[in-house]
Amino acid sequence: MPYRAPVREFRFLFDHVVGLPQVAATDRFAEATPETVDAILTEAARLSETELAPLQRAGDTHPARLEAGRVIASPGFAEGYRGIAAGGWVGIAASPEFGGMGLPMALTSAVNEMMGSACLALHLNPLLTQGQIEALEHHASPEIKALYLPKLISGDWCGTMNLTESQAGSDVGALRAKAEPNADGTYAVTGQKIFISWADADFAANICHLVLARLPDAAPGTRGISLFLVPKFIPDAAGNPGARNSLSVVSLEHKMGLHGSPTAVMQYDAAKGWLIGAPHKGMAAMFTMMNNARLGVGVQGIAAAEGAYQLALDYAMDRKQGKTPVPGAGAIIDHADVRRMLVQMRAEIFAARAIALSCAVATDMARATGSADWQARAALLTPIAKACGTDTGVNVASLGVQVHGGMGFIEETGAAQYLRDVRVTAIYEGTNGIQAMDLVGRKLADGGEAAFRLLEEVEAQAEAARGAFPNMATAVWNAAETLRETTEWLLVQEMNQRFAGAVPYLRAFALVLGAHFQLRAALADAGRVALARVAIKRLLPEHAALLAEVRCSVDELYAVTPEDLRA
Amino acid sequence: MPYRAPVREFRFLFDHVVGLPQVAATDRFAEATPETVDAILTEAARLSETELAPLQRAGDTHPARLEAGRVIASPGFAEGYRGIAAGGWVGIAASPEFGGMGLPMALTSAVNEMMGSACLALHLNPLLTQGQIEALEHHASPEIKALYLPKLISGDWCGTMNLTESQAGSDVGALRAKAEPNADGTYAVTGQKIFISWADADFAANICHLVLARLPDAAPGTRGISLFLVPKFIPDAAGNPGARNSLSVVSLEHKMGLHGSPTAVMQYDAAKGWLIGAPHKGMAAMFTMMNNARLGVGVQGIAAAEGAYQLALDYAMDRKQGKTPVPGAGAIIDHADVRRMLVQMRAEIFAARAIALSCAVATDMARATGSADWQARAALLTPIAKACGTDTGVNVASLGVQVHGGMGFIEETGAAQYLRDVRVTAIYEGTNGIQAMDLVGRKLADGGEAAFRLLEEVEAQAEAARGAFPNMATAVWNAAETLRETTEWLLVQEMNQRFAGAVPYLRAFALVLGAHFQLRAALADAGRVALARVAIKRLLPEHAALLAEVRCSVDELYAVTPEDLRA
Repeated sequence: MPYRAPVREFRFLFDHVVGLPQVAATDRFAEATPETVDAILTEAARLSETELAPLQRAGDTHPARLEAGRVIASPGFAEGYRGIAAGGWVGIAASPEFGGMGLPMALTSAVNEMMGSACLALHLNPLLTQGQIEALEHHASPEIKALYLPKLISGDWCGTMNLTESQAGSDVGALRAKAEPNADGTYAVTGQKIFISWADADFAANICHLVLARLPDAAPGTRGISLFLVPKFIPDAAGNPGARNSLSVVSLEHKMGLHGSPTAVMQYDAAKGWLIGAPHKGMAAMFTMMNNARLGVGVQGIAAAEGAYQLALDYAMDRKQGKTPVPGAGAIIDHADVRRMLVQMRAEIFAARAIALSCAVATDMARATGSADWQARAALLTPIAKACGTDTGVNVASLGVQVHGGMGFIEETGAAQYLRDVRVTAIYEGTNGIQAMDLVGRKLADGGEAAFRLLEEVEAQAEAARGAFPNMATAVWNAAETLRETTEWLLVQEMNQRFAGAVPYLRAFALVLGAHFQLRAALADAGRVALARVAIKRLLPEHAALLAEVRCSVDELYAVTPEDLRA
Repeated sequence: MPYRAPVREFRFLFDHVVGLPQVAATDRFAEATPETVDAILTEAARLSETELAPLQRAGDTHPARLEAGRVIASPGFAEGYRGIAAGGWVGIAASPEFGGMGLPMALTSAVNEMMGSACLALHLNPLLTQGQIEALEHHASPEIKALYLPKLISGDWCGTMNLTESQAGSDVGALRAKAEPNADGTYAVTGQKIFISWADADFAANICHLVLARLPDAAPGTRGISLFLVPKFIPDAAGNPGARNSLSVVSLEHKMGLHGSPTAVMQYDAAKGWLIGAPHKGMAAMFTMMNNARLGVGVQGIAAAEGAYQLALDYAMDRKQGKTPVPGAGAIIDHADVRRMLVQMRAEIFAARAIALSCAVATDMARATGSADWQARAALLTPIAKACGTDTGVNVASLGVQVHGGMGFIEETGAAQYLRDVRVTAIYEGTNGIQAMDLVGRKLADGGEAAFRLLEEVEAQAEAARGAFPNMATAVWNAAETLRETTEWLLVQEMNQRFAGAVPYLRAFALVLGAHFQLRAALADAGRVALARVAIKRLLPEHAALLAEVRCSVDELYAVTPEDLRA
């Protein structure tokens, strides 16, 4: 589909909303100068617009397929992938020591968003490899790093994550895959994994699987899980793909969307694997990687939302229907309800993007400074960025279909594909329900300290904005205060009471943050005031209903029994 | 997919919530005795469960196709259709004079819902024929009635609606199809129509198209539109399909869902047609039909929601994952967030169904008594039933996917199909935006009289319930009062200000009505209290944010310019 990378929007967010300059002021990310940022955004935009966007429809209409055990990617994907790899985009955030660009996650997220908007199914491949690179950087031995990282960073080889088994989805601790020690220090990994994205690709010289499995002496549950690197071809002494490992792609799924991204059942039969990190510490290693993967998936949601929004906006500016109530070209964008939908889409995307980039900035600051506060900020924002980004993806893509009217239901239009593709992002990498439980559970386990610190910033900015925008500032301050009070209330509840309100709590948190960033944008640029005003007036008030729901009794919820539900 | 018709739920709603007994107490619908209602529900349930539900997946995986100008339906659809026709279900609401059962719309809606849950794509066919039967009953000449109605009612022939042209969607008045008088009193209809559902079927002996077109002397816009009956085969003197008319199916669309229902581009080349109703009064004739068609589409939304809900509930009761926080079988239904989703699905379906059946009852009472008040009630509830039913379809089907986790994205599961199929119901038969504009425009043109009369009933019931359920009653009364105040405010606004808040206004109205019916159910049956309590506490509060949005300035909305949106 046609796509215009929102480069100006990223620049504005970086400079005026999420604080990229403070990242660039650190030693670690000193290279992220304005010139570098510009060059990166411009080149990623070019690739996305001209080489990746044309692949979007073919990925849908010509799904990846399995032929003689090998995955044949959709037409054009191999060329598109080579463009991504050749530009160094797989390794944009990776360590320069092994060929990466070492750039901040904030910039990486912008680049990932653009490529995801252009072709979500293809871009999922390098996104997964980025996650694997990060896991290996943190947990692999020097030998493994030296052997694998250059290949992964250059994009010659691709990486996957293998967690899920049919009985072990959200409950990873239920997994049964086994790893038996071999005499040579490697392990024989055996088991079946499902929902493995990009488990194979005809454009990759090797596929490196990170597989969760149990050692023979493992404890039950998540404490007995270890992480293994299991390559499709075992590298020879020179580091080139050698003998075929005993693993296979059993089948590919038929999915609602994201057809260009193969989703496989993988079988490992005493496949040769290397332990990554310490025995039984696989979950910890996965979590390092998962935090960024969760941000990455949140960005996927925003990516689809932006694509869907642009398509709907173009249609609304072009399509003439009925007499419009205001002077103009007579296009449907001038009908109040269509304008309302488009403004909502734009406002939701702005908010989700600001949240995701703030999360990325916090990650960068934590890495650059080692600050526990930044670390806690990143940890707090990660589930919000994931769930809000992907909810935004689903909402905006559905509104995009609606703006198109009947044409929205016709596949050739492309609006429906955004909705079908993005739907899975609210599910994989931890469902949005799991994200919300993470927020009210682990992420409030500090007694709410990180949350309260963030809300203080929200309230302080609102205070400072009272002179310029009294109504908006009051609305944001009051909402933050209600959220603070609800957070305090949550902290003294038992865990299942928290869980019963986790999803509305996360949504309310995202609404408050979105309004906070709208206000900041309005303070920075007079041209942003109109959007901020509508967003704060029309969208923010829902926080009250959501936070009221948070306080609803869990016992009353369970009082609706399975028998009642069945009746 | 497996499907259990909610017969007990329909009986409860009929007897205790929507007031079917008052319909059965009229002369016109005296046959709708409890015994007849039971027999009808039971038999429609049997057909839906055993003959139609097994067709659901095949309709998706083997779409209708065009072969040599003829539509070949999905495998099994011909047999399924014959089951529907043989049971007399096409003519359930039609006049007994021509072979119909003459039963109330309330019962018809229940039957339509069951068949729609079982196989939405196939059941759309008889639903369209029902609309055509109604239009002909009201507007056709005695000769046309005698010739066509028996064939349509028996299901030998099928009916379609042809309104849309590529430049005339929501703005029907922009249509260009022409009708020139022939010497014999018939007309030559010429033009191209798009988005024609079930434009052809290999199981029908004839297809009767109702086509909107312009006579040579027609005024521009909607005042110059006439309605024509254009059969595929022109009936001979004996009433059997005779000469082929000059119309053709040009192509079928590739759609996001509802693959089993062919959506065609139709070409008419001086096709022979018969004028239905008076010249230039086609819109009025279509509106008779459209009101019921809109209710019918609202019911389609509920049908898909029910199917999606049952599938998700079965999965949640079966799937074990993680340690559940309450004693039980350890299935995910006992996790708080999953329970929350299922309870919300159930509550939304209950509300949407009660609204739709109330609308049907009002239609029945208007027909049976000629009462203008009932007529106004039906007119008021129609856009709410359509938009609320289909929004519920989309929301519940999306939650259904979410409850399934990763399995929800896999097509074989069936959860995704409900979401893909139902998405169009929020668009066709007037988008939900158009429904909302109808509500705040035409349906408040009585100075809000019908709305206020309904809200008085809501408040009166809440008053009466204060003793039994003080919290619920207060919440419902307060919400109704806020809705009443907002309605009064709306009535003194210019139309585009109303339109800017139309969608949130309709949603808030539906929330208040849903809570009202939940309260009524709780008053009638102690077993319904737990659900009513959760629904009123968790779902109703959103009305406040929605009604606040209604009052947001339309000027501020337009202050976000197309240039701002493009930036």
